[in-house]
Amino acid sequence: MENGQSEAALRYEALTVDTLATRLGDVHEVASRVGGEPASWEIREVGDGNLNLVFIVTGTAGSVVVKQALPYVRMVGESWPLPLYRAHFEYYALVRQAKRAPNIAPEVFYFDKPQALFVMEYLYPHTILRRKLIKGERVAHLGETIGQFCARTAFRGSELSLPSPEKKQDVGLFSGNVAIPAITESLVFTDPYYGAEMNHHTPELSPVVDELRRNVRLKAKVQRLLMKFTANTETMLHGDLHSGSIMATDTDVRVIDPEFSQYGPMAFDLGMAVANFLMAYFSQPAHRKDNVLATYQAWILEVIEACFTSFDAEFRYLWQTERTGILFPRALFEEQGNSADDACDALLDEIRLDALAYCGIEMHRRVLSLAHNADFEEIEDTALRARLEARNVLMGQALIMNPDAAREVPALIELAQAYNRQDVL
Amino acid sequence: MENGQSEAALRYEALTVDTLATRLGDVHEVASRVGGEPASWEIREVGDGNLNLVFIVTGTAGSVVVKQALPYVRMVGESWPLPLYRAHFEYYALVRQAKRAPNIAPEVFYFDKPQALFVMEYLYPHTILRRKLIKGERVAHLGETIGQFCARTAFRGSELSLPSPEKKQDVGLFSGNVAIPAITESLVFTDPYYGAEMNHHTPELSPVVDELRRNVRLKAKVQRLLMKFTANTETMLHGDLHSGSIMATDTDVRVIDPEFSQYGPMAFDLGMAVANFLMAYFSQPAHRKDNVLATYQAWILEVIEACFTSFDAEFRYLWQTERTGILFPRALFEEQGNSADDACDALLDEIRLDALAYCGIEMHRRVLSLAHNADFEEIEDTALRARLEARNVLMGQALIMNPDAAREVPALIELAQAYNRQDVL
Ligand SMILES: Nc1ncnc2c1ncn2[C@@H]1O[C@H](COP(=O)(O)OP(=O)(O)O)[C@@H](O)[C@H]1O
Ligand SMILES: Nc1ncnc2c1ncn2[C@@H]1O[C@H](COP(=O)(O)OP(=O)(O)O)[C@@H](O)[C@H]1O
Ligand SMILES: [Mg+2]
Ligand SMILES: [Mg+2]
Repeated sequence: MENGQSEAALRYEALTVDTLATRLGDVHEVASRVGGEPASWEIREVGDGNLNLVFIVTGTAGSVVVKQALPYVRMVGESWPLPLYRAHFEYYALVRQAKRAPNIAPEVFYFDKPQALFVMEYLYPHTILRRKLIKGERVAHLGETIGQFCARTAFRGSELSLPSPEKKQDVGLFSGNVAIPAITESLVFTDPYYGAEMNHHTPELSPVVDELRRNVRLKAKVQRLLMKFTANTETMLHGDLHSGSIMATDTDVRVIDPEFSQYGPMAFDLGMAVANFLMAYFSQPAHRKDNVLATYQAWILEVIEACFTSFDAEFRYLWQTERTGILFPRALFEEQGNSADDACDALLDEIRLDALAYCGIEMHRRVLSLAHNADFEEIEDTALRARLEARNVLMGQALIMNPDAAREVPALIELAQAYNRQDVL
Repeated sequence: MENGQSEAALRYEALTVDTLATRLGDVHEVASRVGGEPASWEIREVGDGNLNLVFIVTGTAGSVVVKQALPYVRMVGESWPLPLYRAHFEYYALVRQAKRAPNIAPEVFYFDKPQALFVMEYLYPHTILRRKLIKGERVAHLGETIGQFCARTAFRGSELSLPSPEKKQDVGLFSGNVAIPAITESLVFTDPYYGAEMNHHTPELSPVVDELRRNVRLKAKVQRLLMKFTANTETMLHGDLHSGSIMATDTDVRVIDPEFSQYGPMAFDLGMAVANFLMAYFSQPAHRKDNVLATYQAWILEVIEACFTSFDAEFRYLWQTERTGILFPRALFEEQGNSADDACDALLDEIRLDALAYCGIEMHRRVLSLAHNADFEEIEDTALRARLEARNVLMGQALIMNPDAAREVPALIELAQAYNRQDVL
């Protein structure tokens, strides 16, 4: 039996602040890190997410975070059931990320499969990056760390690096996670582009939305990217790498919440992360002004540049030093006196183009589909919000339709600056 | 227990002509179709393949074919072990093909999982297509049937058609088949491009081979296609659709032996089939001459044309009538008054380009890697053989390096004709 538990414990039951100490008090991995009498533990439920229960448990020795899946979507309720097994995949993803990109994901101390819960490192004094970006706070090495994280997980989770049998077995394991990819497939790739039931958008944005939804070529391109997303098991993704899945201090960057992990295209996480930086950028005029606005927006663009640059640099480094899988084997290149550098550059070029297109899609779904971003959502003046969202939507469209024009980072930056000045509303 | 068998029967044992009747005589699905006393059955082992045991079993009522995996590669011996479970995947593939492209694969009557065997329809008077092509025999509707088969299996095995949970579960199932894709990955995609241990080629071809193996850009392109092959689970492939996996009469075309089935890119089977037609084409000058040669070669080119044309026509038809999956949903197109035809054409264009490149790779591996084709291999004059193989190798290279130039079928045909006239040896 998993974790040596009794039959009774196998029956799933959601934790509460009142039952947590009793239920986890005698689990050594938890108790030893929290310290003191379980009855005296301080327990807070902090789940600000859309889906799960998250508790911070503090005792005499320290704090841990307990995350448990609920059998439904938390922000919607029991009317939208969602399988508990998704917590297993989040745990599997955290374990893999720890190996592939050390010290970025929270360390996991304990996993209880039947209870769909795990216990992890409490990140402190980290706060959610999205809040920092709304407040105008800077984080050192933000772009570098995220770019590097994306490159390491992309490379080390692929057959460029992993032994094929191991990678294929893992694809098989993750193929069991059907419910979660289905959410991304509809909410991210499809719903934004027609009047799907759960959609909502800022009323004043309607003219832009209507025109976007009439763009048949755009819809076709997005669906082609969906096809790659569903079928292309290149590497294990984080799957939901937005700024609400990043926690940071002024100098430390961590990535949480890989609940949407799946095997997918190498470009996806990178594109989604950059989209969230771009949305932070476009929303800034509502959060600050004048000189502070200009310099903070400029800093966000630096983050984006660093993100791409460090992705490429790290990927190239791993290509040189850890290319041990069946793909582009050294036997065909270096061992024949042939460099494989051009092949790496060509692959990076393809990844860049796809990342830009995925970026555009994420920029759309966050203002058109179900789950919106606080960056825009907290702008109370809806006319202003719509104006800023329009810039974001139109740049997203440009990235999907013609990623080539933004393939060089300076061109991407200029494009963002141009849309930041241009108003259709 | 699978098939209600006793413990003893679960222990795998290879069939022989002497034990088959005893071991399968009381299996109703077999006995009822063969007819008569098992002891009087006529049993012939006909496995001309590289891997498995194949028996034709004949009685008073008819014949069936029994195929059983061996725990090693037949043509090499016990020194190259290969898991028995591959027979399970061949069976799973046959069942799926029967649904997705009816009446092309042999019907399966019985499956014994622990014995890694299944019993199927005896195709008669069909013979292996490769032999017909070497003999100069025509088969009506050959290209149409193969193109249609590829389109139906490609479309109906993808998320254009299948419900996503079903498709993802199937990807999970097939991810268990690790040993077989590994063979394709090395023998088809990698070994041809360097001096791998098991390779062999016609001695006189060496100058062409050496130059090919110095083409770094070619190797990079092939590895990029390998990356798509290993990671892109678009649809369930036959996986080994060469002319030795096609059986035909003058008017009927059937496809056997999907032992290399896996989820992979839609373009793969189409490309491999066409490659085998092109190799038949290039080898013809060794098998017949003058007018007969010219008209038979012209017929093979018609087969290739029909193959591409019917693939596209069938795929378009299914796109219109069976697009029920999550990809390119009608909700985004037809239901918005938008045609999805352009999206279909764009996808077909991508499939065409990839098919041409996979075609080129198959043309290479069949003269450079371990498993060669009788079309060339039976040419005893090695100087002539090398001359014809050179045409084939160079056209393959052109298709990989620049598939775009052969994207329209007439251009492809002209390219073949040009290489058929051009000698470097
Ligand atoms: N390891 C952690 N350390 C500190 N806070 C955390 C940790 N994990 C989660 N949190 C807090 O809990 C919130 C919800 O967690 P998250 O994993 O995003 O849940 P969900 O899957 O429901 O979105 C986060 O936004 C963050 O504030
Ligand atoms: N259903 C069938 N009907 C008639 N002959 C068959 C059938 N299946 C296989 N054969 C014969 O047996 C040979 C080997 O079968 P095949 O499935 O190709 O085995 P392998 O997997 O070892 O390559 C074929 O080339 C063909 O001659
Ligand atoms: Mg979250
Ligand atoms: Mg065979």
